[in-house]
Amino acid sequence: MRVGIIGTGMVGRTLGGKLVELGHEVMLGSRTEQNPTAVAWAEQAGPSAQHGTFAEAAAFGELLINAVSGVVAAKALGNAGDENLAGKVLIDVSNPLVFSPLGEVSLEPVNVDSIGEQLQRDFPEARVVKALNTLNCELMVDPSRVPGEHQLFIAGNDPAAKAEVTELLHSFGWPKAAVLDLGDITGSRGLEMLMPFWLRLMNHYGHADFNYSIRTAR
Amino acid sequence: MRVGIIGTGMVGRTLGGKLVELGHEVMLGSRTEQNPTAVAWAEQAGPSAQHGTFAEAAAFGELLINAVSGVVAAKALGNAGDENLAGKVLIDVSNPLVFSPLGEVSLEPVNVDSIGEQLQRDFPEARVVKALNTLNCELMVDPSRVPGEHQLFIAGNDPAAKAEVTELLHSFGWPKAAVLDLGDITGSRGLEMLMPFWLRLMNHYGHADFNYSIRTAR
Repeated sequence: MRVGIIGTGMVGRTLGGKLVELGHEVMLGSRTEQNPTAVAWAEQAGPSAQHGTFAEAAAFGELLINAVSGVVAAKALGNAGDENLAGKVLIDVSNPLVFSPLGEVSLEPVNVDSIGEQLQRDFPEARVVKALNTLNCELMVDPSRVPGEHQLFIAGNDPAAKAEVTELLHSFGWPKAAVLDLGDITGSRGLEMLMPFWLRLMNHYGHADFNYSIRTAR
Repeated sequence: MRVGIIGTGMVGRTLGGKLVELGHEVMLGSRTEQNPTAVAWAEQAGPSAQHGTFAEAAAFGELLINAVSGVVAAKALGNAGDENLAGKVLIDVSNPLVFSPLGEVSLEPVNVDSIGEQLQRDFPEARVVKALNTLNCELMVDPSRVPGEHQLFIAGNDPAAKAEVTELLHSFGWPKAAVLDLGDITGSRGLEMLMPFWLRLMNHYGHADFNYSIRTAR
């Protein structure tokens, strides 16, 4: 499958590398034409790895991944172009992190809105699935780093899109039963609002190599 | 120990019942003098169970538990009286849930503030510990309902108060290692912001008999 990744950060590059490894063709999309990070990534990730602009990556992909920060996601996807998103599954991995000058972290939007919902509203023909925003990117593509059962969470309005994303996550090593469907795209609120808790856990453990396991009585 | 519980809802009554069972003296505090729910609870919970006003319960308790809803917590504790809170450990179990007329749930405050912080600001002489707001009340007092390892999270500015709360939770059946310290009282933000995720999980499972287990690679 051809996958277009919007964003050249650690998350985009890690997901892109795994997708290439799994035999997919990947284009890493950047704001600019010759982003040095994207060029270097494409060179080292192999012949199935390419780089381009946001619009080129979105046009290239049969499936798209938003891997830019939540606060700039709508703009980046606007640059990608409505026509390049229409009908495509768009995995939104982002978190709405805002850093104050003093280093304090807050979320925007939060509570009664989310990046997942914003993207689905702004790009109604994209099939947005919120996924993978709840864990470190190394763990996204290698769940066995953490022993035992632990889970991923998805939310979106399109059941077929969620099924397709679940298949993709399964190919990353996640048991299908470990991908919990939390309902429509408004489920993005709860998923994005996990971030402050996740940051506190990271402080507690002193590393990011952890994930949520939901344990049930029945 | 004498425990004063602010609030007569399901959470307050369940915690109160467990505390009586463990040999503590408990007063369930209510807005009014002869709240029928509090009277009935005190009658059935045994001779160590009493009921009173918020102020009476706060004066009675060596340790206090805020078990009213987050949005009315500051007012209830205001009625309880500063002098009855000073120097005491105050466990804040609340969540800042606001229900719209259409049944939609949001949080207030959220993101850059929390009920835990509000209470610590409003009652600077109380030793506020955020705890137990992340799970169903039946599970709070009976962790064995859910098999395997799963966790509680605490936050607060006073290490001795957190140690005291950890001991109390241990007496409820929680291993001490299952009580994760997430730092100062601003950790309440992340803990309170778990609620939308928790509600989605409850919808997913169709029941509230679940808890978080954090699994780590190291």
